[in-house]
Amino acid sequence: MTRGLECYDCGYTSDDQTESRCRCGESLWFSTDTNEFAWPTEAWTNGMWRYADVLPVSKPVGVTPGGTPLVRADRLDEYAGCRLSLKVEAQNPTGSFKDRGSAVGVRHATEIGRDWVGTVSHGNMALSTSAYAAAAGLECAVFVPAETPEQRLELIARHDPHIFRVEGDYGRLYEQTLALEAPITFVNSDTPLRVAGQKTVAYEICEQLAPSVPDAIVLPISSGGQASGVWTALRELEAAGLIDDLPRLYGVQAAACDPIATAYREGRESVTAVDAAETIAVSIANSDPPSGTRALAAARATDGAVVSVSDDATRKAMDRLATAVGLSVEPSSAVALAGVRKLSDAGELAADDEVVTILTGSGYKERYETDVESRTKTIDLEALEAELEGILEGSEGDVSRQTNDR
Amino acid sequence: MTRGLECYDCGYTSDDQTESRCRCGESLWFSTDTNEFAWPTEAWTNGMWRYADVLPVSKPVGVTPGGTPLVRADRLDEYAGCRLSLKVEAQNPTGSFKDRGSAVGVRHATEIGRDWVGTVSHGNMALSTSAYAAAAGLECAVFVPAETPEQRLELIARHDPHIFRVEGDYGRLYEQTLALEAPITFVNSDTPLRVAGQKTVAYEICEQLAPSVPDAIVLPISSGGQASGVWTALRELEAAGLIDDLPRLYGVQAAACDPIATAYREGRESVTAVDAAETIAVSIANSDPPSGTRALAAARATDGAVVSVSDDATRKAMDRLATAVGLSVEPSSAVALAGVRKLSDAGELAADDEVVTILTGSGYKERYETDVESRTKTIDLEALEAELEGILEGSEGDVSRQTNDR
Ligand SMILES: [Zn+2]
Ligand SMILES: [Zn+2]
Repeated sequence: MTRGLECYDCGYTSDDQTESRCRCGESLWFSTDTNEFAWPTEAWTNGMWRYADVLPVSKPVGVTPGGTPLVRADRLDEYAGCRLSLKVEAQNPTGSFKDRGSAVGVRHATEIGRDWVGTVSHGNMALSTSAYAAAAGLECAVFVPAETPEQRLELIARHDPHIFRVEGDYGRLYEQTLALEAPITFVNSDTPLRVAGQKTVAYEICEQLAPSVPDAIVLPISSGGQASGVWTALRELEAAGLIDDLPRLYGVQAAACDPIATAYREGRESVTAVDAAETIAVSIANSDPPSGTRALAAARATDGAVVSVSDDATRKAMDRLATAVGLSVEPSSAVALAGVRKLSDAGELAADDEVVTILTGSGYKERYETDVESRTKTIDLEALEAELEGILEGSEGDVSRQTNDR
Repeated sequence: MTRGLECYDCGYTSDDQTESRCRCGESLWFSTDTNEFAWPTEAWTNGMWRYADVLPVSKPVGVTPGGTPLVRADRLDEYAGCRLSLKVEAQNPTGSFKDRGSAVGVRHATEIGRDWVGTVSHGNMALSTSAYAAAAGLECAVFVPAETPEQRLELIARHDPHIFRVEGDYGRLYEQTLALEAPITFVNSDTPLRVAGQKTVAYEICEQLAPSVPDAIVLPISSGGQASGVWTALRELEAAGLIDDLPRLYGVQAAACDPIATAYREGRESVTAVDAAETIAVSIANSDPPSGTRALAAARATDGAVVSVSDDATRKAMDRLATAVGLSVEPSSAVALAGVRKLSDAGELAADDEVVTILTGSGYKERYETDVESRTKTIDLEALEAELEGILEGSEGDVSRQTNDR
């Protein structure tokens, strides 16, 4: 049911599926006819491939992204100020939401007979693209900044891609790779194939909650690619008659690097680059987001917003997810929960709103500054029984874990 | 449909669900009547809770283990010497198969009104138990060897358990904690609640392949708890009439620490402790496995075997999984694939056998010694186009990725 590429902004259409950018400068998206679409009967264990009918590629054999859990996190409701559910994208094969787009991009490259795929990233997207290329038997070119530490590249290198350390203006590389006329499929953050794959996260959220529709979806924003995918999906599902009202889309950024939130605050229609400071949310620190204007439009069109949060709020949200829900995520995912709290405080989210937050990436790829020492005690084996009696008794008056807000 | 506890070896039964060990010394298991059991209609996105009817607990709200993909890995068939599918347990919420048993153990503790759970582990099981305890609002006691480096405890500490560094004979601690008469549920590797949760992996494998039944299931063995769970499940499914023939169960250990494989080789009926050497497969290096004799019996009863593999073979299998299937696993998971290859070479597995290998844990929790350098090249942004032309042309005669065995 997928047709050619289309520019949401100026209406340009193209049948050349290898294009990425419109003449007007905006990103192209696949246009899909969903008038006949119904929730599939395919098994959930096929992951996102249950939506193959609305994707520009067919299902390959092998690693399966998607089909991730949607977890009701009632223990965080008080903290979040709403009825919160978590879409745990960290449970994808390479530990992040990027797998959806990588799977589609790599599959498309295979279907049109290419031997190479590429990406501009030194994080989740590089890891994900390398893994799916390996699974499909394609060669993969990964472009990283020259100064990237070897330690950071180890996870990526396992999948045997060709890693290029690029000296020069890394920021320019993103668009430059998309403009190349070479037989290599670049699956960068906001390219049509990646956005097509990414939309499946919203298909899943809506199907998992059907026939209910969430009041709001809150997600971290970097390039704007994921927001584009979610927005596309929601409109396709509306066209299919499967959802009545579009959920409000909220984007969250790190305050140290928040070009889209800045544009939203200032009431502007387009996003421009900002001077960024350091943030712990490294995966979403994009100071010049290629689909920033699209993400802003998605938030406005759905009556949502784009906000930014401090690293301190992000650290607290990360800690809540680990200690009250049992989920370990990267800081760039925790920003979304910090954003939910901020939006509730601002009255954008109400206590009875059903809100879905997308937890984009696993916390297992890095070590963080957790206070191990204060949680650790050294004891002698012989003293085990006495020690246990002590803590079990001591805890009787201290059932702190039982409350939502400690 | 779950009844009380039962000893597989001597027939002892008990209605006290807090027991772990039989008077005869063997581990107790939950006995379950599956005569009326049929494949559930529940959504796969409920993960292992689709099998709640055959578990000793009911489904809690929150984090969802199980429902992991079963991936057909045809690109590894030549290497593996059979038709290989991979059960990707690394995609559980805390990145390992341990989540299934932790979820059941923690849920049981909640249902009987306990405030505390505990475990003896400094790896996947400690992480998993801490996470599920946090999600349920229970306190968690984790016992680790005194010398465990803080870096290794960071992932665990995120979930805010009470970590005890134990000085003394750590090996004794496992049984000692199970013998305690304190109101704390210890969910150690081969305890009844953990084995009950663990059995769901085999329920899933069989349902995902139904109406086919795999010829063999190959899994890494440490304590014997997972093998016990799989064996239990297969017999329950046979009783339910859902599988005719039991798949052959094969266990794989690291050669440096292989008490069960040694007993199998020597034709013994019971497993005794060995002097272990160092191995990269740290998660399964148990020199005195509490359910080793059970695992051995499971392999023999199903016409399987227990073998061990070198660290070198494990490294190669790990590399294959990353470069041909796109999956990054820990060495303790890769041993299973190395075992498949060994079993094929020995004629135990045939080229047309349908074989399922359980990939127990994610490779993202540690950094390994991948050769990053040889995969990396530094280039100047200005030379991008020329550089790409070079590699794209160069690759024409080198489509090594397209073959199974490079
Ligand atoms: Zn345009
Ligand atoms: Zn007994």
